[in-house]
Amino acid sequence: MLKPGSTIGILGGGQLGRMLALAAARLGLHCHIYSPEKDSGAFEVVRASTCAPYEDEAALAKFASSVDVITYEFENVPAKTASFLAKRKPVFPDPHVLELTQDRLIEKNFIDGLKIAVAPYAAVHSASQLAAGLDKVGRPAVLKTTTMGYDGKGQVKIMPGDDANAAWRKLKNAPCILEGFVKFEREVSVIAARSADGHVECFEVTENEHRDHILKISTVPAKVSPALATEAKRIATRIAKAFDYVGVFAVEMFVVKTGKKQAVLVNEIAPRVHNSGHWTIDGATVSQFEQHIRAVAGWPLAKPIRLGRKVEMTNLIGAEVNETQAWLTVPGASVHLYGKTDARPGRKMGHVTRVYTK
Amino acid sequence: MLKPGSTIGILGGGQLGRMLALAAARLGLHCHIYSPEKDSGAFEVVRASTCAPYEDEAALAKFASSVDVITYEFENVPAKTASFLAKRKPVFPDPHVLELTQDRLIEKNFIDGLKIAVAPYAAVHSASQLAAGLDKVGRPAVLKTTTMGYDGKGQVKIMPGDDANAAWRKLKNAPCILEGFVKFEREVSVIAARSADGHVECFEVTENEHRDHILKISTVPAKVSPALATEAKRIATRIAKAFDYVGVFAVEMFVVKTGKKQAVLVNEIAPRVHNSGHWTIDGATVSQFEQHIRAVAGWPLAKPIRLGRKVEMTNLIGAEVNETQAWLTVPGASVHLYGKTDARPGRKMGHVTRVYTK
Repeated sequence: MLKPGSTIGILGGGQLGRMLALAAARLGLHCHIYSPEKDSGAFEVVRASTCAPYEDEAALAKFASSVDVITYEFENVPAKTASFLAKRKPVFPDPHVLELTQDRLIEKNFIDGLKIAVAPYAAVHSASQLAAGLDKVGRPAVLKTTTMGYDGKGQVKIMPGDDANAAWRKLKNAPCILEGFVKFEREVSVIAARSADGHVECFEVTENEHRDHILKISTVPAKVSPALATEAKRIATRIAKAFDYVGVFAVEMFVVKTGKKQAVLVNEIAPRVHNSGHWTIDGATVSQFEQHIRAVAGWPLAKPIRLGRKVEMTNLIGAEVNETQAWLTVPGASVHLYGKTDARPGRKMGHVTRVYTK
Repeated sequence: MLKPGSTIGILGGGQLGRMLALAAARLGLHCHIYSPEKDSGAFEVVRASTCAPYEDEAALAKFASSVDVITYEFENVPAKTASFLAKRKPVFPDPHVLELTQDRLIEKNFIDGLKIAVAPYAAVHSASQLAAGLDKVGRPAVLKTTTMGYDGKGQVKIMPGDDANAAWRKLKNAPCILEGFVKFEREVSVIAARSADGHVECFEVTENEHRDHILKISTVPAKVSPALATEAKRIATRIAKAFDYVGVFAVEMFVVKTGKKQAVLVNEIAPRVHNSGHWTIDGATVSQFEQHIRAVAGWPLAKPIRLGRKVEMTNLIGAEVNETQAWLTVPGASVHLYGKTDARPGRKMGHVTRVYTK
């Protein structure tokens, strides 16, 4: 158990690292941010920071020696970086989780192996696998590179009549996973935390609305049956245990109708704090960021309680950051800006959480 | 109106400066902390900081040139420092407020001049004034130095039979104010914010419980009648306007019974964010810290809405910081530690806010 005044090293300097550092500060814990990006927003809220590539072993060694425990804000930390650091200081979640989640195919196989329902999928390493996969999952389907994709990058839709091989060429014939198109009723996620001693706390099931493959709005409570909410949390808990996970993670799921009943299919896992959990900063008695800090610090988790009858989180994407002024006076709204200067299209610049108390 | 990415200079590096900086970070605003204390907790959550005496004009000039606007976390900033800075950058609240509030006697006369009820008091600059004052306010009474006192420091009680002159000598015969002892029913405070364009927002009246002259517990809602709550807020609003105040301030009041009705007497004003407003971080849709940052940045204020049916803030004073562990698992409790290492008796080490949702 880390004492107050200890230092948590965080790999990655974006808004997630920034909000983790702000949560740590409240608890009297210091953070040291390691990021290759010069203009990392997280640098602004900590005293100790290292700006160096993830391959710079001298910088990594120095970073490791200056912290008590290490975590990360995103799952694409190079495996070599994680294992280099893990030899020097405890890394949470354990780097083996990165190996399982950095590759969509390995992740899907892992979840499938836990007897948890996923959308139909197939591995694509050859043209014949692609053809066989399409036979299996049907059209429309989505072809995704197994690694490095996010926010809709690294994926292409295959519609009836489309040339599948041409679609694959768009992804440079990289190893892919072909996913059947799921006619979902809604998208939800469960943000869960697991402590070092194996205790799991789930936040309420969150309903998510994407635009252009980027999360736009998260709402709590989600419009799902109590039974489905329980099942969704059970799945998250099952995954946490199977991973021997320590920290916060998100499970994105599709809600589908089978007959009159709702059922869930797991879409993907994010082994980190997640955009769909941002509402917890203002809308719950503990935030996902604090839960993660508690977990990696070896502290007990808090039991999250929602504040207000409804909570809605809206991302400010690209030029939408200019709407900030209008949000400032919306009753119950809390504005968060990430300190980014360049409002590129598709870039997450901030978010607003609105708590409905009445 | 400051743009996101602007820098707010804060004089003082204690927990108030720290929590102001954390609130600013959420809004995409930077802070530069100026403090003479090497181990200032606020240094930990900002990138820019200056550790120099308040009399160091070179350091002050450099500080001023690096920020867009200046504020302070406490009212005992030397008047000369404030006026030096005010010539270089906008300072909020205006330094004239410091002159009015750094001296208890001037403050009391000012409030009295606004026809706002205060406890009976008298100026003490001589033994004859002391005797006349005791005749006026009665015994028991409290003799307080006009400047620099806080948390019970710089004051002495005069009971029936006590040697008043001996009491005054304990305060080194400094200029004093003698205050009549108020038999109050309860102590309350109003935390209010006033924006640059003159709009005032009050937080709910907060009930405060002191131990050894130090705030121990704040509770919302306070046990006061709706009429008294309205009157308390009216008084705070009146004071804000009279000061032409910009930022957050606190008015501490005594609730007294006159017949069957509750009435308030103003005890003192703190021209800054205040310990009795810490509950707003977790217990309201906007915190006192964010309101202050909004005000000094020229942004509109938010309308504060309480979260939960009851909110209770408990200070962790001195060795009580060791109770932190137990608080971590209390339902609805949020723990805040200020990053102080030395848990001296009477030192505010952190606080816990408990939001009762049921």
